[in-house]
Amino acid sequence: MTVIGITMGCPAGIGPEIILGYFAKNQNRPDIRPVVLGDQAVLEKCGNDLHLPAPCRPWSPGSPLPENGIPVVSLSSLRSKDIVWGHPNRATGKAMAHYIKAGVELARQGLIDGIATCPIAKSTLNEAGYNFPGHTEMLADLTGSTDFAMMLAGSRLRVTLVTIHCPLSAVASRLSTEAVYRLIQTTHRALVIDFAIERPRIAVAGLNPHGGENRLFGSEEKEIIEPAIERAQGENITVSGPYPPDSVFHKAASGAFDAVVCMYHDQGLIPFKLLHFDDGVNITLGLPIVRTSVDHGTAYDIAGKGVASHLSLSEAVNLAARISQNRAIYHSRE
Amino acid sequence: MTVIGITMGCPAGIGPEIILGYFAKNQNRPDIRPVVLGDQAVLEKCGNDLHLPAPCRPWSPGSPLPENGIPVVSLSSLRSKDIVWGHPNRATGKAMAHYIKAGVELARQGLIDGIATCPIAKSTLNEAGYNFPGHTEMLADLTGSTDFAMMLAGSRLRVTLVTIHCPLSAVASRLSTEAVYRLIQTTHRALVIDFAIERPRIAVAGLNPHGGENRLFGSEEKEIIEPAIERAQGENITVSGPYPPDSVFHKAASGAFDAVVCMYHDQGLIPFKLLHFDDGVNITLGLPIVRTSVDHGTAYDIAGKGVASHLSLSEAVNLAARISQNRAIYHSRE
Repeated sequence: MTVIGITMGCPAGIGPEIILGYFAKNQNRPDIRPVVLGDQAVLEKCGNDLHLPAPCRPWSPGSPLPENGIPVVSLSSLRSKDIVWGHPNRATGKAMAHYIKAGVELARQGLIDGIATCPIAKSTLNEAGYNFPGHTEMLADLTGSTDFAMMLAGSRLRVTLVTIHCPLSAVASRLSTEAVYRLIQTTHRALVIDFAIERPRIAVAGLNPHGGENRLFGSEEKEIIEPAIERAQGENITVSGPYPPDSVFHKAASGAFDAVVCMYHDQGLIPFKLLHFDDGVNITLGLPIVRTSVDHGTAYDIAGKGVASHLSLSEAVNLAARISQNRAIYHSRE
Repeated sequence: MTVIGITMGCPAGIGPEIILGYFAKNQNRPDIRPVVLGDQAVLEKCGNDLHLPAPCRPWSPGSPLPENGIPVVSLSSLRSKDIVWGHPNRATGKAMAHYIKAGVELARQGLIDGIATCPIAKSTLNEAGYNFPGHTEMLADLTGSTDFAMMLAGSRLRVTLVTIHCPLSAVASRLSTEAVYRLIQTTHRALVIDFAIERPRIAVAGLNPHGGENRLFGSEEKEIIEPAIERAQGENITVSGPYPPDSVFHKAASGAFDAVVCMYHDQGLIPFKLLHFDDGVNITLGLPIVRTSVDHGTAYDIAGKGVASHLSLSEAVNLAARISQNRAIYHSRE
């Protein structure tokens, strides 16, 4: 049995309601036991406000799991009146950071097998005193990881990102042959171990329109990306490119590649969200723990309205369990 | 009856074969008469090599159209032995530029109602002595147009581009409130006149990840894009944004918007080609003539193999005719 901790994310966002929606619908995977790392009172208020079942059962990590209901490790004591859906404050910001830290700690101790995280708002995170550009960078810091990467995974497309949360104007200057090469390697390793693909085929996107078209519109393809690909090919990784960015995703989605290594956030996220708006999963590669995440935001504009889809959370929990199981099988063979 | 001139594009690319494929399949639109601006000998060689019908009929603009076959304005005299599929040379480069110039001239004289262009290779164009970054810029120069723009149109998505053929690292510095505002205006005008949409809804994409997320990852949204949107809104244009780039295309493809104004080539082309890889059409807005184009390249790797799809050309011819007809109706009402 695989135990996946679901961090509740921003208490004022759609985290609580997609968790209740998920538990109401997903009772049928006997190999996966999801537990919530959050705040029982907030979940109960959410259930009350949105008329969703919220059968919370306090759970203490290490003790047996309850036979039914929603196992909750209650990590904050937010008062019901402090929760206004769609309106985060300093207290909710501090609480959501605490859920993430607890998730990492429990996973490192082996008390859970991985975490699936609900969305946080980066501005609220920063206001609460955590100066990270995002969830991923905070998790890397908490686990002391330097060679981490973001992958977005869906049934038709997987993408990884060389640069993530930085202005578009800074992307080119942040690329390096070393960074592209390491991401190809990290992506390859994840496909082999986490996704159990024996001989994965990786495509690398160019940076510029038409892949630079022979240096007419930029030379990063020749100077930075090609040497990285050649180095990885020399290590027997099946990788090719750089491809013109505007056609490589069509090829990958048609089945030609198992993942596309992308140079910047929107290069990968635009095609990914077009194909997997509701069911995409974000995975952090290169951490010592298994971590997946919904690939949407806190959606404050619709929080508390009961319209948010729990599909991405459901996929994130299932994928965290699958990765945890694949890693165990891989390491048992070593 | 609407007469659309199909420029043959690079004679060594897939232009000749998609033209023959198109004529073999598209005989049933009585309101549209396509004519080829190219080289009869090349079309006949292509027919011969690929076992495609090539019933060419020489046509002199201004004279009556032939009753059947493929009307061809033969504008070059390439020798059969000079044509090696997939291998352009200086002679083919000069010829393809000549087709484009003739198309513009015939359209300006009213001898044809618009042009649908087959692909050219920009490097070959430059080697032939025409220093333009692309087809679009060459057409703008030939017609003396300064306020032109590229639109990609398909049944699910239309996008326009503020910057086109420039390195990604140069995009941010080339954006200006004036350029974004003018493109919103040009896009609005095209949707009203060329697409006959009475009250079009336009979305504007941000530049940075998450639309800059309150200046955390860039400030162009606040400083450049928002003022442009506000100015256009002040002129009673239904336009909104800037939206996070990674979700706006999903919304547009779901029917929320009639077009998305994009900040750079791949921001628009990546989602567009994912949805319309085979049937997308490229339109140049802001020219005094009607011009559409296939949205794919010369595809030298598959030229002469008979596997290229003529779907985009077929859509381009139909759309050129529709735009020409819509413009005539609009101006007759003025």
